Amino acid sequence: MENGSSSSSSVPSTPLLKDELDIVIPTIRNLDFLEMWRPFFQPYHLIIVQDGDPSKIIRVPDGFDYELYNRNDINRILGSKASCISFKDSACRCFGYMISKKKYIFTIDDDCFVAKDPSGKEINALEQHIKNLLSPSTPFFFNTLYDPYHEGADFVRGYPFSLREGVPTAVSHGLWLNIPDYDAPTQLVKPLERNTRYVDAVLTVPKGTLFPMCGMNLAFNREVIGPAMYFGLMGDGQPIGRYDDMWAGWCMKVICDHLGLGVKTGLPYIWHSKASNPFVNLKKEYKGIYWQEELIPFFQTVTLPKECTTVQKCYLELSKQVKAKLGKVDDYFNKLTDAMVTWIEAWDELNPSVNAGTAAARKPNGAAK
Amino acid sequence: MENGSSSSSSVPSTPLLKDELDIVIPTIRNLDFLEMWRPFFQPYHLIIVQDGDPSKIIRVPDGFDYELYNRNDINRILGSKASCISFKDSACRCFGYMISKKKYIFTIDDDCFVAKDPSGKEINALEQHIKNLLSPSTPFFFNTLYDPYHEGADFVRGYPFSLREGVPTAVSHGLWLNIPDYDAPTQLVKPLERNTRYVDAVLTVPKGTLFPMCGMNLAFNREVIGPAMYFGLMGDGQPIGRYDDMWAGWCMKVICDHLGLGVKTGLPYIWHSKASNPFVNLKKEYKGIYWQEELIPFFQTVTLPKECTTVQKCYLELSKQVKAKLGKVDDYFNKLTDAMVTWIEAWDELNPSVNAGTAAARKPNGAAK
Repeated sequence: MENGSSSSSSVPSTPLLKDELDIVIPTIRNLDFLEMWRPFFQPYHLIIVQDGDPSKIIRVPDGFDYELYNRNDINRILGSKASCISFKDSACRCFGYMISKKKYIFTIDDDCFVAKDPSGKEINALEQHIKNLLSPSTPFFFNTLYDPYHEGADFVRGYPFSLREGVPTAVSHGLWLNIPDYDAPTQLVKPLERNTRYVDAVLTVPKGTLFPMCGMNLAFNREVIGPAMYFGLMGDGQPIGRYDDMWAGWCMKVICDHLGLGVKTGLPYIWHSKASNPFVNLKKEYKGIYWQEELIPFFQTVTLPKECTTVQKCYLELSKQVKAKLGKVDDYFNKLTDAMVTWIEAWDELNPSVNAGTAAARKPNGAAK
Repeated sequence: MENGSSSSSSVPSTPLLKDELDIVIPTIRNLDFLEMWRPFFQPYHLIIVQDGDPSKIIRVPDGFDYELYNRNDINRILGSKASCISFKDSACRCFGYMISKKKYIFTIDDDCFVAKDPSGKEINALEQHIKNLLSPSTPFFFNTLYDPYHEGADFVRGYPFSLREGVPTAVSHGLWLNIPDYDAPTQLVKPLERNTRYVDAVLTVPKGTLFPMCGMNLAFNREVIGPAMYFGLMGDGQPIGRYDDMWAGWCMKVICDHLGLGVKTGLPYIWHSKASNPFVNLKKEYKGIYWQEELIPFFQTVTLPKECTTVQKCYLELSKQVKAKLGKVDDYFNKLTDAMVTWIEAWDELNPSVNAGTAAARKPNGAAK
């Protein structure tokens, strides 16, 4: 694990949640993309999860405060439990969620740049995510003017007053201008399609509704929902890729619905610069495209018993139901459910309960053993 | 009933659904607001429902093709069943839905004007509603790039392919720039708030999610959902007002969910010119504000048996459940359920089934007696 130096030059005044949020970046290359984000990210701490060959040196621009974990670090810190962290897939980013000590996480891909709003102003994506996370969600009733907590908006006529306090927001899902997040078949059919539509809205995904959560531009309250943000087994040695964030999104959403937490989608936009290769993507995705037809009905009907009062309990219960219901779809789901359990064990090991008084005993590198 | 003359001058080329859509306007005043809408509305037939004093003459600008019904007309056409049509409340507009012979309805308030999009272009609200109605809805899974059928958009990665055909769209709910549709308490607290945010999106309200449907700027497929669009008992002699569209929206939504039909909200915007008096509104609304706390849980949990295969059957079943569950909230709901039944009887009388071969026997003024 390397440690970068911290610099406070050219930092905007009073960045929100500066000491309560980590930026998690999975990568296989030099992080030159951070130059464009410097005005917005430099005040924050970065957790870089290096994928692929651990002997490769990842260059991080000067002035950023970061820690970097490669595969050797992950293996050393998690031991046998490192098996739950994917290799050669950006799903490895969830190690960063686990090792963080902060309340909030923002994760972004290294091919995502600063977008501009219709007035030409650069969008501070992180600031918008933080606003989304710090204001409530409204999952029980749809507000037609979108986020009622936004300046200049409110609840419209007919919105029950008892629901206007909302619920805590667990997740803020941001979108992408330029290259849309399409699956391989759609990429192949529409190679030139670009997203140019700036939709100036944030909305709560209603209770009971699933959505495709993309990991490219995503923030969440780690204290509230962190253990559900497991990105599964993808990439090296696995029969599937590019479903890491989808899996996390479906698991997270049913748990948020059960626990009365909110999930928002919409603003902020980032500029997604480069479409990944659709032929490679098709190879990674094709089983997922088939499997998801059985996964979605499962997640649409799954119910968690009321005894599941914590994210961990919900997640372990969900893993049992996945094994029972999806194990027959493919043996992969049996492996995945084992990894889900391992993930929770590793999470609890790295994040001993504050109430148990052991948090202070954590070693600097996050290994609690 | 008066009949206006039709003019084809200054009509845009090939207006969509020209002979399949009626524009329904409830009013108590001269319809000067139509001048601004002339380029967009003139090709269409208008159904004007005159509220209040039937002896008053409502002036309609030259060149519009319209029929106008006042209270005397409604009483004559519906006889004793006219009791289900509200008086001295814009809820009377639903008489226009019933008397129409067209497949689609667009209804708009007479204080709504043409809005401009951010580029300064005048918005053809009707054209956008028609596009919304003619493309499918996606109630079973949320698409993060909003309407996947919009040009330049599609379903994103992780959206199940089996759900990409969507379902028929029953309702298109448009929004308002300038004066937002707030309840009286919010009007009182925020008298100066204006909606200036143009959100460039249309989205499907997910299955199982209720929303506050506003009747100001609304279109629907009358053939598919018409009998559910009853605006209830409001205004003169009733203990409540300003819940006509809300009531219709809740009833309509649970029936759409049951029948597998879609409801969209978002574009188009109209320019809402004038806030109604919040003190008057408070008097109309205050029982509704209290009652809706019991109505929403009712509509959120109501289920219709599978034998309910038509809108009429669904609506009659819903009326029974309203009586059973909400009659104890206030005796008003017993009256309302009786009116719901009367509404369906009147609807069926004016709209005899085409399959029964009696449609051609309808008299020109729509009275089937």
